[in-house]
Amino acid sequence: MNLWFTENQTDNLRLSFRVKNLVEFRKSKFQTLAVYDTVEYGRLFTLDDFVMLTEKDEFVYHEMISHIALSCHPKPENILVIGGGDGGTIREIERHSRVKNITLVEIDREVVEISKKHLPFVACGFDDERVSVIIDDGIEYIKNHKNKFDIIFIDSTDPVAFAEGLFHTDFYKFVFDALKKDGIMVAQTEYPFLKGDFIKEVFSSLKQVFPIVSPYLAFIPTYPTGMWSFAFASKKYHYINDLNPEFTKDFAEKLKYYTPEVHKAAFALPKFVKDLIE
Amino acid sequence: MNLWFTENQTDNLRLSFRVKNLVEFRKSKFQTLAVYDTVEYGRLFTLDDFVMLTEKDEFVYHEMISHIALSCHPKPENILVIGGGDGGTIREIERHSRVKNITLVEIDREVVEISKKHLPFVACGFDDERVSVIIDDGIEYIKNHKNKFDIIFIDSTDPVAFAEGLFHTDFYKFVFDALKKDGIMVAQTEYPFLKGDFIKEVFSSLKQVFPIVSPYLAFIPTYPTGMWSFAFASKKYHYINDLNPEFTKDFAEKLKYYTPEVHKAAFALPKFVKDLIE
Repeated sequence: MNLWFTENQTDNLRLSFRVKNLVEFRKSKFQTLAVYDTVEYGRLFTLDDFVMLTEKDEFVYHEMISHIALSCHPKPENILVIGGGDGGTIREIERHSRVKNITLVEIDREVVEISKKHLPFVACGFDDERVSVIIDDGIEYIKNHKNKFDIIFIDSTDPVAFAEGLFHTDFYKFVFDALKKDGIMVAQTEYPFLKGDFIKEVFSSLKQVFPIVSPYLAFIPTYPTGMWSFAFASKKYHYINDLNPEFTKDFAEKLKYYTPEVHKAAFALPKFVKDLIE
Repeated sequence: MNLWFTENQTDNLRLSFRVKNLVEFRKSKFQTLAVYDTVEYGRLFTLDDFVMLTEKDEFVYHEMISHIALSCHPKPENILVIGGGDGGTIREIERHSRVKNITLVEIDREVVEISKKHLPFVACGFDDERVSVIIDDGIEYIKNHKNKFDIIFIDSTDPVAFAEGLFHTDFYKFVFDALKKDGIMVAQTEYPFLKGDFIKEVFSSLKQVFPIVSPYLAFIPTYPTGMWSFAFASKKYHYINDLNPEFTKDFAEKLKYYTPEVHKAAFALPKFVKDLIE
């Protein structure tokens, strides 16, 4: 069978996956959702034909968006996740027994539904009693909560359509206000090789709001260029100086990407990335 | 114009580049050579339809294959490069004024010719008086040279056809013998995400021959999965303990990827890679 799913990563670059089966395709109020079985990467989940995750490499994104901040905050009791309706990020956050409450605010109810139905490997943590799922616009939600969270994760889609507002200075100010006085924010911030100007702008915005800001990087094969960036933005704790390897020790053997050494290394930026944000 | 070059990265995964122009296509005794102009990555050079380099991201591969070993060896006077006929690796080696002789052994004369003609950004170092180019089979060459080189770089194509022998224990023994008693070897060793078994075998072979062996990683967007591995194999010098940032200081500003911090970080392996080679 010669069936392929192709992502137009940019107008001029395409990644194609050989597909065994189209599992589901539907349109929600916000976007089109699809699930495929691929030969190389297992189950594949797309929104508007952009790769959200694959079964084989999702561990990188989800471990790296979550454990970095959770390894720097000494008392991460109240956590907010904006987006992340597939459940992968909360699955990782739940490993930390110090976490008491996780609020997940997902705009599209059908992302949660389709994930529970077809992506059990990521959507396995919704029943944890610490989790509350709120179907709402993350921007509206965050505006209405002040001084409440220890860590906020912005686990969003790409900066287009309804997710575009998640990458602006005004939004980062709401996030700052929603955090407690020693809070940390982590956000996904796209791919430096081809989105240099975007990343420059995002980090310039973040630096206007937070005193401690740095990108960090991870290898994600199914995202454009394979080099993905995240923003660490913090009021008090430093991404290296406050790293405590004890915080991941209990479940270190279960992880496939994150280690305390990888944590430190993720902030060692290739020179062209360093130059972008300085 | 809707013209695309597509690499079959595996049987089940394809990367496609929008092409502005086919610059050259020819068959040599060993392989088919092609040069394209792409929209996203500038000039693209392929062998047998596999991406060898692009103008936009070749700096990662060439900086990372060369400066790691050159930053650990205190007296790297005699250098051997097997393969590397495009010239990118010698361009980087030449930055080190401590280097006195560079011998490049390339099996396919037409790789050097096509690079000089169409890839001047990499093929700019052939006129350096320290460089000798020998058109020969690297395996035969290395068999006949003992105790001669301070560093040997294996800058080969993928482990198929004539390049396959460059990844075996017997070859690594010849490399060991061709090195002086404090010599270092660096080789490209493919992509851990999808070639785990291959990498496991290569590192197991290397450990039978060299006392100090480690993979290290770099982000290379146009190679499969974007996560590329190299082998550092050494008789005496350690990849971290013997790193001397002074050795790249004079030209640090000219580099786009390598820094001494990136050097150290490249050896911090994601847990699944660490598990592969242990």
